[in-house]
Amino acid sequence: MEDHQRHTNPQFEAELNGLRDALLKMGALVQVQIARAIEALVNTDSAKARETIARDVEVNRLDIDTDERCIRLLALYQPAAGDLRLITTGLKITTDLERIGDNAVNICERVLEFNQHPVPSAYIDVPRMGAVAQSMVQDSLDAFTRGDAMLAEQVIARDDEVDSLDDEICRQLLGFMAQNPEAIPRATPILFVSKYLERIADHATNIAEMVVFLVKGRDIRHMDKRHQNASALR
Amino acid sequence: MEDHQRHTNPQFEAELNGLRDALLKMGALVQVQIARAIEALVNTDSAKARETIARDVEVNRLDIDTDERCIRLLALYQPAAGDLRLITTGLKITTDLERIGDNAVNICERVLEFNQHPVPSAYIDVPRMGAVAQSMVQDSLDAFTRGDAMLAEQVIARDDEVDSLDDEICRQLLGFMAQNPEAIPRATPILFVSKYLERIADHATNIAEMVVFLVKGRDIRHMDKRHQNASALR
Repeated sequence: MEDHQRHTNPQFEAELNGLRDALLKMGALVQVQIARAIEALVNTDSAKARETIARDVEVNRLDIDTDERCIRLLALYQPAAGDLRLITTGLKITTDLERIGDNAVNICERVLEFNQHPVPSAYIDVPRMGAVAQSMVQDSLDAFTRGDAMLAEQVIARDDEVDSLDDEICRQLLGFMAQNPEAIPRATPILFVSKYLERIADHATNIAEMVVFLVKGRDIRHMDKRHQNASALR
Repeated sequence: MEDHQRHTNPQFEAELNGLRDALLKMGALVQVQIARAIEALVNTDSAKARETIARDVEVNRLDIDTDERCIRLLALYQPAAGDLRLITTGLKITTDLERIGDNAVNICERVLEFNQHPVPSAYIDVPRMGAVAQSMVQDSLDAFTRGDAMLAEQVIARDDEVDSLDDEICRQLLGFMAQNPEAIPRATPILFVSKYLERIADHATNIAEMVVFLVKGRDIRHMDKRHQNASALR
């Protein structure tokens, strides 16, 4: 009843849509940041890496702006039930998006290191992994704005794909290092790039889990057994 | 005025104290998890690593419980101003604490890998780094419950110390790998342990930055230039 009243408050609805738009804008920007980081790696383009690092301030600005929207909505409209959970989820999603932006910066830092003495064949599967991680971010946010639990569950399922790609890249790199010990310092940055992409996929999975929770009203965040089942030998 | 009224609502005050206690309990548990993970590494104790991984469910239970406390406080008392920010900060802190718990699990997974063929001297500085990261978690939460911005700023300053320890450990390990290429697969897990500890310190720094924001009412989260100034050659 109260919920219904709130839904028909046009000012509240407008601000809630503003929050959705702000989250999508922030999500679009971090996706561009991931893409730029991978381009900088593949093209050994240090200028692009530096430019991407500098653009992180835009992500941070959107983070603060989106958080403020959430707090203002809570303060002015005292939302209940579903709306309250939507807004508190928004507050948590900004944290994940901001850290995805940080991970893109971390990749660029490794690219600058790597570019001093690039190892041409070392990053063979990294762009594919980057593309999967990026699309998971996109889909998790689409699931949030549409309230689409099925899409969110698909994102969660794809986390395993990224983990497998990470395993594969690590295996390849360790083999390469064992054959070419002198190249260890040069190949190590790619190991970390792979880990940063895996972490981006984790953040997208977190967002997707929160969406399922929002839609279905139960907390699946800790039911996926990611850690319990994770191979201890990765 | 409204704020004052809320502060004198004994039921609200009691629930707010309950939230603080829940956050401290969760913080204490993740610190124990970090300590157990480091012990498992130093003593090549796979049983302890497995036990620590299994205990992550307790962290997850506290995460859900603490989030629910935040949402209930928002729904029932419609807090304003400082109280509202305190509670929304609580919502974000649970995310950081939960991920610190995940990082302790990640360390244990690497320990299980490493323990198959341990490299005795490889983890020389890791316990020290673990102790610093753990104390940062402790202090960031103390700063939160006491509203102590000065302590929070000290936590933020110590993030550089952890970054230096991480650099040092990486340098040592890469040198060791170059000398002993056959030991690369065995020494690599320690590289990742060092990264997980660095990430725990980052989460503590995030909490500390939120505390400074809470106390001083301005957002320093993105003013520390951690990324902008971070050496690109780490």
